[in-house]
Amino acid sequence: MPELRKDPIIGRWVIIATERAKRPSDFVSKAEERKPGFCPFCVGNEGKTPPEVLAYRQPGTLPNTPGWSVRVVPNKFPALQIEGGLDKRGIGLYDQMNGVGAHEVIIETPYHDLTLANLPMENFIQVLQAYQDRIIDLKRDYRFKYVLIFKNQGHAAGASLDHPHSQLIALPIVPKRVDEEIRGANTYYLYRDRCIICDIMQQELDMGVRIISQNQHFIAMSPFASRFPFETWIIPKEHDVYFEDSSPFLLQALGQILKDTLERIALTLNDPPYNFLFHSAPFYEKEVSFYHWHIEIIPKLAQVAGFEWGTGFYINPTPPEVACEFLREVKP
Amino acid sequence: MPELRKDPIIGRWVIIATERAKRPSDFVSKAEERKPGFCPFCVGNEGKTPPEVLAYRQPGTLPNTPGWSVRVVPNKFPALQIEGGLDKRGIGLYDQMNGVGAHEVIIETPYHDLTLANLPMENFIQVLQAYQDRIIDLKRDYRFKYVLIFKNQGHAAGASLDHPHSQLIALPIVPKRVDEEIRGANTYYLYRDRCIICDIMQQELDMGVRIISQNQHFIAMSPFASRFPFETWIIPKEHDVYFEDSSPFLLQALGQILKDTLERIALTLNDPPYNFLFHSAPFYEKEVSFYHWHIEIIPKLAQVAGFEWGTGFYINPTPPEVACEFLREVKP
Repeated sequence: MPELRKDPIIGRWVIIATERAKRPSDFVSKAEERKPGFCPFCVGNEGKTPPEVLAYRQPGTLPNTPGWSVRVVPNKFPALQIEGGLDKRGIGLYDQMNGVGAHEVIIETPYHDLTLANLPMENFIQVLQAYQDRIIDLKRDYRFKYVLIFKNQGHAAGASLDHPHSQLIALPIVPKRVDEEIRGANTYYLYRDRCIICDIMQQELDMGVRIISQNQHFIAMSPFASRFPFETWIIPKEHDVYFEDSSPFLLQALGQILKDTLERIALTLNDPPYNFLFHSAPFYEKEVSFYHWHIEIIPKLAQVAGFEWGTGFYINPTPPEVACEFLREVKP
Repeated sequence: MPELRKDPIIGRWVIIATERAKRPSDFVSKAEERKPGFCPFCVGNEGKTPPEVLAYRQPGTLPNTPGWSVRVVPNKFPALQIEGGLDKRGIGLYDQMNGVGAHEVIIETPYHDLTLANLPMENFIQVLQAYQDRIIDLKRDYRFKYVLIFKNQGHAAGASLDHPHSQLIALPIVPKRVDEEIRGANTYYLYRDRCIICDIMQQELDMGVRIISQNQHFIAMSPFASRFPFETWIIPKEHDVYFEDSSPFLLQALGQILKDTLERIALTLNDPPYNFLFHSAPFYEKEVSFYHWHIEIIPKLAQVAGFEWGTGFYINPTPPEVACEFLREVKP
């Protein structure tokens, strides 16, 4: 019998197919062909991107020249524009404002042919450090309420360039999905005086069937109401509201578990395309101390079709307990 | 300057790229190859599907034999199972119930090589009639709170078989997206004592820039906060809560405008893959008279990636006014 499971934070139901559960070999993840040709993110082509806003460089090298290990540049084709005011306005019953925001690219390594999962650990930590540094900088701009860090790996997951990179978008509004999490976590907090993600983590540690791995400061788990096959969340064990406030010490632990998890996914599913995204608290004046930041990783294995668009809920052909077993057992 | 626009019903923001707006020719919609081989939906293969639950047939023909024009069968690989009780239960802080529901396929025509858009009008109306008949029948089952009618056309939009067909899923819960519309419409109704969709339609008829076409009883329009390029909604002009209560007269008018709209999309975008879905009111005991049913059509042209998963809002590279102009001007 298939199961209906409810996401405890935002209340979204998913259909979990329990019979004929799809295993990794059921997902044909063809190795994607890399597109040959000119790469604006490679060393030596620094002049082909907009000027860098951040780079970790060898001492003595100049901005926008070789010598960097991680480099952040504005997106050349940004979804939002950095200059200008919001100019909020109504058009009859409609609401509109200017598309003001930042859209940046984090070039994760000078080496075109690597992937994030197989970067050396030191480089990997620098990528996380760059996420932090950029959020902290953008947070100073009073127009922005949220910064989303995300990665599209592989063409099927939305990447248009092969060179390893992630992106950030700073937004003048709190996005719907995050707002739903805030409201869900707040409702729970008002009722129980506890953080819902802390409680989820405690229950998962007790049950054990959806924990993929853990270290001293983080766990990697398959969520109870996973929308997608092999969806994986990484959660700090200590209650923390903002990713960007993590200490260098915590970043080390995060680097270890995130890299390990991406390697497990790559090994289990033959290097699938994937998305990941960081959910950290918005820059509210409001009290959001009940929120708990985390990372959501979504391998791109299944298609979203009419049913999902129409209902906002998902049919997941792989129970998270099955996905977890595969991901737990593979050894990076 | 890109624009941020807010969906007036559910409050979802979208980013509308106003410069470098993508036109139909920017979307490479390669004609999809049809898969050769055995088709269980073709005439003569009636025994290869589960027994039909509804068929419009020539007088004197037997169930599950040739002689039908539209045929409805249970999905052979259903996402939900028709037998059994809900058995709602908690697992610690999680909520779960049995995956009880109906999952049916509406085979739209005996002719394998047609598409819904180019069915003869009489056949097209029968498809709508079959949607109605099945909803009315399933509504009698006290376990169900919602029936979603949807169509995945083309492999890229999630169809696994070429033969023209649509689907329905009956659910024991009201799906999140519909619940959001209900709540949004209710909030507006409490504030203004009017239906928000009636008001949207009035404003659109006044402004004229997003109306694709209309007949006496329906309009086809590009929504102000379209998530996707060339997204199109069809709305009854009279305030109507339930699609399934439409008179045969209204179904004729709906058939005319829906077929016309699908033809316009096919002509403008070179027969793109698409999804459509019917949003009608749930089978509440509750009062939902403020709700207004409609159809959402989503051509599958753009990819959904990390940003959309992380925020729940969308980057639409084609302003609805631009999409509307193309769809309005093409002549089916």
